[in-house]
Amino acid sequence: MIRVGIVGASGYTGAELARLLCRHPDVEIVAATTRQYKGRPLDSVFPHLAGLTDIVCEDLDAEGLAGRADYLFTAVPHQTAMNLVPSLLTAGAKVVDLSADFRLRDAAIYEQWYQPHSAPGYLAEAVYGLPELYRDRIAAARLVANPGCYPTSVILALAPLLTAGVIDPETLIVDSKSGASGAGRGASTASLFCEVSEGFRAYKVGEHRHTPEIEQEIGQLCGRPVTISFTPHLLPMSRGILSTIYATLTVRKSDLEIYEIMREFYRRESFVRVCRPGELPATQHVRGSNYCDIGFKVDLRTNRLVVLAAIDNVVKGAAGQAVQNMNLMAGLPEGRGLEAVPLFP
Amino acid sequence: MIRVGIVGASGYTGAELARLLCRHPDVEIVAATTRQYKGRPLDSVFPHLAGLTDIVCEDLDAEGLAGRADYLFTAVPHQTAMNLVPSLLTAGAKVVDLSADFRLRDAAIYEQWYQPHSAPGYLAEAVYGLPELYRDRIAAARLVANPGCYPTSVILALAPLLTAGVIDPETLIVDSKSGASGAGRGASTASLFCEVSEGFRAYKVGEHRHTPEIEQEIGQLCGRPVTISFTPHLLPMSRGILSTIYATLTVRKSDLEIYEIMREFYRRESFVRVCRPGELPATQHVRGSNYCDIGFKVDLRTNRLVVLAAIDNVVKGAAGQAVQNMNLMAGLPEGRGLEAVPLFP
Amino acid sequence: MIRVGIVGASGYTGAELARLLCRHPDVEIVAATTRQYKGRPLDSVFPHLAGLTDIVCEDLDAEGLAGRADYLFTAVPHQTAMNLVPSLLTAGAKVVDLSADFRLRDAAIYEQWYQPHSAPGYLAEAVYGLPELYRDRIAAARLVANPGCYPTSVILALAPLLTAGVIDPETLIVDSKSGASGAGRGASTASLFCEVSEGFRAYKVGEHRHTPEIEQEIGQLCGRPVTISFTPHLLPMSRGILSTIYATLTVRKSDLEIYEIMREFYRRESFVRVCRPGELPATQHVRGSNYCDIGFKVDLRTNRLVVLAAIDNVVKGAAGQAVQNMNLMAGLPEGRGLEAVPLFP
Amino acid sequence: MIRVGIVGASGYTGAELARLLCRHPDVEIVAATTRQYKGRPLDSVFPHLAGLTDIVCEDLDAEGLAGRADYLFTAVPHQTAMNLVPSLLTAGAKVVDLSADFRLRDAAIYEQWYQPHSAPGYLAEAVYGLPELYRDRIAAARLVANPGCYPTSVILALAPLLTAGVIDPETLIVDSKSGASGAGRGASTASLFCEVSEGFRAYKVGEHRHTPEIEQEIGQLCGRPVTISFTPHLLPMSRGILSTIYATLTVRKSDLEIYEIMREFYRRESFVRVCRPGELPATQHVRGSNYCDIGFKVDLRTNRLVVLAAIDNVVKGAAGQAVQNMNLMAGLPEGRGLEAVPLFP
Repeated sequence: MIRVGIVGASGYTGAELARLLCRHPDVEIVAATTRQYKGRPLDSVFPHLAGLTDIVCEDLDAEGLAGRADYLFTAVPHQTAMNLVPSLLTAGAKVVDLSADFRLRDAAIYEQWYQPHSAPGYLAEAVYGLPELYRDRIAAARLVANPGCYPTSVILALAPLLTAGVIDPETLIVDSKSGASGAGRGASTASLFCEVSEGFRAYKVGEHRHTPEIEQEIGQLCGRPVTISFTPHLLPMSRGILSTIYATLTVRKSDLEIYEIMREFYRRESFVRVCRPGELPATQHVRGSNYCDIGFKVDLRTNRLVVLAAIDNVVKGAAGQAVQNMNLMAGLPEGRGLEAVPLFP
Repeated sequence: MIRVGIVGASGYTGAELARLLCRHPDVEIVAATTRQYKGRPLDSVFPHLAGLTDIVCEDLDAEGLAGRADYLFTAVPHQTAMNLVPSLLTAGAKVVDLSADFRLRDAAIYEQWYQPHSAPGYLAEAVYGLPELYRDRIAAARLVANPGCYPTSVILALAPLLTAGVIDPETLIVDSKSGASGAGRGASTASLFCEVSEGFRAYKVGEHRHTPEIEQEIGQLCGRPVTISFTPHLLPMSRGILSTIYATLTVRKSDLEIYEIMREFYRRESFVRVCRPGELPATQHVRGSNYCDIGFKVDLRTNRLVVLAAIDNVVKGAAGQAVQNMNLMAGLPEGRGLEAVPLFP
Repeated sequence: MIRVGIVGASGYTGAELARLLCRHPDVEIVAATTRQYKGRPLDSVFPHLAGLTDIVCEDLDAEGLAGRADYLFTAVPHQTAMNLVPSLLTAGAKVVDLSADFRLRDAAIYEQWYQPHSAPGYLAEAVYGLPELYRDRIAAARLVANPGCYPTSVILALAPLLTAGVIDPETLIVDSKSGASGAGRGASTASLFCEVSEGFRAYKVGEHRHTPEIEQEIGQLCGRPVTISFTPHLLPMSRGILSTIYATLTVRKSDLEIYEIMREFYRRESFVRVCRPGELPATQHVRGSNYCDIGFKVDLRTNRLVVLAAIDNVVKGAAGQAVQNMNLMAGLPEGRGLEAVPLFP
Repeated sequence: MIRVGIVGASGYTGAELARLLCRHPDVEIVAATTRQYKGRPLDSVFPHLAGLTDIVCEDLDAEGLAGRADYLFTAVPHQTAMNLVPSLLTAGAKVVDLSADFRLRDAAIYEQWYQPHSAPGYLAEAVYGLPELYRDRIAAARLVANPGCYPTSVILALAPLLTAGVIDPETLIVDSKSGASGAGRGASTASLFCEVSEGFRAYKVGEHRHTPEIEQEIGQLCGRPVTISFTPHLLPMSRGILSTIYATLTVRKSDLEIYEIMREFYRRESFVRVCRPGELPATQHVRGSNYCDIGFKVDLRTNRLVVLAAIDNVVKGAAGQAVQNMNLMAGLPEGRGLEAVPLFP
C-alpha cells in the first residue's frame, strides 16, 4: 500500500482528494492536515465521508509528515506551498502540489503575476502535471505541479489544434466559466449562496493568474510566445468548467477534419472524450468524473473555429488529476481510483 | 458474468441503472429498451455515459429479452409493469421491478390508490425489496418489488423505533421533500427549470400513492394497521430526499438512548449511517451514493421525537437499491458496484 | 416627505429596505448606517441599487440619527437592538425594530431563549408588528417589533383556524423551510453556495428561537399557553419560506368550510391571498412581493388539517412588513410602496 | 386608459407582460389570448398574478381583438406572428411584435435564417424597437419589432463604441449566456430542471438566429456589412443574459476614456447603467428590472477591449422593452410601469 498524506484537507480540493483516495485500492491515507479542524475526525468535518475514513485531522508538521507518507498532496494556497514543498521533498516524500507555485517555469513571470518566489530553484525540476502532454516526465518526477482548473480545460482543448497547426495562436480568445467550488471553501460574502445563485458575472477580466499558465503551455505547443485573451466567469452551480475558445483557422477545415485531428491526438487517452461533430460538451456530463469532454464547431462565415471543453473543476481540474499524477509517479495504472462515472443528473 | 437488461432506459432511473451497472464488475448489460430512442446508442442519449457502454437502445420484446438476460430491471411506469413482468418471469428471467405494481401485498389497497391490477396473482410472491428488512427473502426471490423513494427513507428511519416500541404509530406525521428527478424525465411544463428553480411547494397533500406503501410496512413493523399523514414537497434541486418525521414518544428517552437503539438496529448494515446525537443528515452528504443517513432529536418540551432520513432518491431510492437487490438475488456481495462515495459539493 | 433611516444597511434586510424605500413615494431615505461600509455609497455596496439612491453609508450615531429621521428601521442583530432602540426612542424617533428583542412580551421567556434583556421596560410598550392582527395598535405605536420570518408565515396560516376553534392547538406541528437569505449576509462557510446548493437539511430541531414567538401569538389566539413542535429547514434557494403545519381537527370540516373560514377572516386584507380548495401555495408565486399565500387540505383519513403558507422571507417576512408597519404608524395607506407583483419565474 | 391585449399569454413573455401591465397606471388589459388555457382566468394559470387581474384567457380572434384594443403585444412564435400581425394592423390596432418576424429589414436574410416570409411588405414599415437607438421612429410607428434578448444586450454594449469608431467590427466575437426562461415555457425534456440545473453548455454555435439581427444593427452603426461570431450558452438559472464581447481596439484607449465614451452616449438614458471602471455588471443586479448594465475592460496585453452587458432577458430582453416601446408609441413617459428596482438577492 502506498502511504499518502493530504496537506490542506479543509477545502474542497482536500475533501475531494480524501473522497477519491479513501476508495483507491492501492493507497492508504495516513494523514490529513488542517489547522482549523485539528483533532477532529475528517468525517465529522465532511459528513459525506462518514464511515469511509477514520483519519483525524492534525496540524502540519512537515518533517514528521514526510517520514510517514510516500506521497503528499499539497492542497494549500500559493505562497504557502512554496514555503512548504522544499522541506517535504528534502525529507524524502514525493509531492503533487495543487497550488500555482511550481507551474510556471520562469520565476520572473511567476513574480509578475503573483509575488516573489521563495523557492525558484525547484521550478526547473517541477513537472507540469498534465498527463496527456507530459506523461513520461511525470512518471519520473519527484515534484509535480498539478495544473490549474481553467488551464486544464483550455490546454486539452487546444493541444491537438496547435500541434496540427490549424489555428492561429495570435487570435486566441478564451471565455471560461466556472462553478463556485473554484472559489474555495473559505468564508466570504462573495461566495454566499445568495450572491451566486440565479446570477452570472465575469471577474478578473484580462487579469486572472491562470493566464500566464495557459500562455506557457500554449507557447510550448506553438514553439513561440503567445498572448491570449482570457475571461473567467462565475456560474451559479458548484462543479464544472466550460471553456469556449475562439481562434481563426489557418487553413480551411471541415468539422469532420477537425474531428479526425482531435480523435487521433487523443486516441489512447482514457480521460479525454471527443464529441462527435454536431454534439457539444456540457459540464453536467462530466460531473464527479475525471473526464475532459471536448467539442467544436467550424464557423464558415467567419473562418473561425470554436472549441469547447468541459471538466469537473474539482476532479480533472484538481484532485482527480492529482491522483492521476500520483498513479503515474507510483507506477500504477493511470486511472486507478478514478473510475467514477459522471453523475447525471 | 451476470447478464442484465434494463427495461425503460430513457428515464432517470434507467440511466442511473446503466451508470451503476456499466462499472459493476460481475455484470454485463445485454440490453436497454426504450421505444423513444430505439436504434440509438445509449451513450448518445445520455452523453455522460459516453465511452462507458456500447449498448444500442432497442424496442421491447419481452420474450426475447428474457432469453438473453438473467436479470431484468423494469424501470417503467406502474400499470405498464404489471402487464410486462409476468411474461418476463415466465420466460425465465428474474426481475427487479422498480414500479409500484408489486409493492402492495393487498390488491384491494392497490386498486384503491392506483387502478385495477392485472396480475394480482404475483403479489404474494413478490418480495418488498428493502434489504435491511427482508434480506433473506430477497435472496430467494424471483420477483423483487423495489421500494418507492419516499417509503425507503421513511421506513428505514422508523424501523428501529417501531421495533423498539418507543413511539406511538398513531401520531406519525411524515413531511417529505424530494428533488426534481423524482418527477421523471418526461417533458412537462411543471418540471421545467423555471418552474422548479428558486421555488418550493407541496403537492398531493394527503393523497400521494406512496402513503399505502409506507402504511403497509409501518403496519408490518407494529403488528397492526396504521394510518399516517404524509405530505410530499418538491425541492429546487435534482437529487435527494429528506423526510422529517414526527411521533410522540411512548416512554421518555434521551437522545443517547435513541441513538443506541438506532445504532444497534443498523450495526451490521453497510448502507445506513446513523448520525451522532447533535448531528443531522443532509441530502448533499448522500448524493450519488447508496447511503441512507438518519438523524433525530428528542423534543423534551413536546415529548415528541423528530426523526430525519436523507437518501439520494435515484440511488438508494431507486437504481442503487435495485442493484443491491440484484446482488442479493445473485448471491453476490450486497454492496458490489455500489461503492461510490457521496459527491460533495 | 417622511424622513427614514436604515440602521444596519449591509445585510439582506437592510438592502431590501433600501430597495423598497427608494421607490416609496412618501419617503426620503436620509441615512443608512453600517460600520463595515462606512463612507461608501450604498449603491456601490449593492450594485442592483445603482442610480436609485445617492445615500452614503455612515457609522451609527444614535442621537444624531434620531434627530434627522422621523422613522428608523433597525435591522441589526438581537442584543444590539435592545441596546440601541431606547436611545433612538428617547431622541424622538419612531422605530420599527426588525430584531427579536422586542417581540416577546415576557422578558423571562426572552431570557430563556436568548440572553439577559437590557431593556425589558420597553417590552410592554412594543407592539408586535403583524398588521393583520394588530393594525390599530401598530398605528398608535412608537416602537413596533417586526415579526420573525417563520412566525409571520405560521401565525397568518393559523389565526383564522384558531380563532374559529376548528383545530386542537396541542397537536400543532410546524415544519418550515426557508431560503438561504434567512441566514444573513455575513461571511460563513455554512452559507456558501457549494454548501447550500443541491442540498437540503433541517437545523436547530426543536430549538429555534422563533418557537417562543410563535407560541406567544398562538397562545394569544387560543387564550391559553400552547407548546408546539417547530422544525426549520434550509432550502437551496435565496428567497422564500413555506411552512407546512399539521393539526388535528376538533370538528369535521370540509375543504370548502375551511376555505370559507379563511376567506372571511382575510376578506379585507390586501396582502393575504387564500388559495382555492385544490390549489396550494408556492414560494415562487410570492417572490419579491409582500404577499402571504395560504392553502390547506383536510385529510379525512387522519382527521388532520394540513395548512401551508408561503411568503418571501425578505419582504413579508422582514423588510416589506416593516414598511407596511411604518405606513400604518405614519397614517399612510398600508400598501404604499409595496405594490410589487411577484416575480415569476 | 389605453386598452391593451396580450396575444400569446401562456408563455413567460406573455406572463411578464401581464405582470408589468397589470400595475401600469395608464393601461387596462382588455384581452389575453392563449388557446391552451382558453376560458381559464389568467391568474389561475399564473398564480403569482392572483388577485391582480381578472382577465379570462380567450382564443385568438384577430379582428375582434383589434377592435377592442388600442395596442396589441404579439408574444407568439415567429411564423405565427407574420401571419397574424397584418390583420391586426389592418383592423386598426398598433402592434408591438415580440417575435423575430419583423426585425430583419431584408426579407432575403430573414428567409436564409428562418423560412419564407409571408408578409415581407411590412418589413419596411416595421421599426426595430430599441428605444436607445430608434426612439423617434418608434414613437411614430404602427408596428414595432421588439428586439431579441441577445441582440438587445449586444447592441447596447457596442453602440457607443462603434459610433465612436474605437473598435474594429471585423474582430467582434460575442460570447453570450442566457438563463433558461429564454427557452420558453413549452414542455421539453431539454429544459427540465434536472437537465439544466448544475450544468452549463453552449448551443447552436455559429448558427443562432439572433446572429443576423445583431449583424444588421452592428452594420447599421458601422455603415457597412459586418460578420460576427456569436455563441449562445444556457445558464442554470431562470432570468438573465450576460454577453461578453471581444473586439480589437483601433486606437489605444484607457478604461477611463472608454468610460467617458459610454457615459456620454447614454447620459440621457434611464435604462442603461454604465459600470464605473473596475466594476463589472452581473445579471443578479438587473433581475426583474428593465435595466441594461454595461461594463468593460481594456486589455493592454492584447489590445482588445472586453465589453460586458447584463439584462433580464424577460424584461429589457422582451416584455419590459415592449412596454417601453408602447409607452413611446402612446406618448407616455418612456419608463411608465417599468420602475421596478432589481430584485437582489
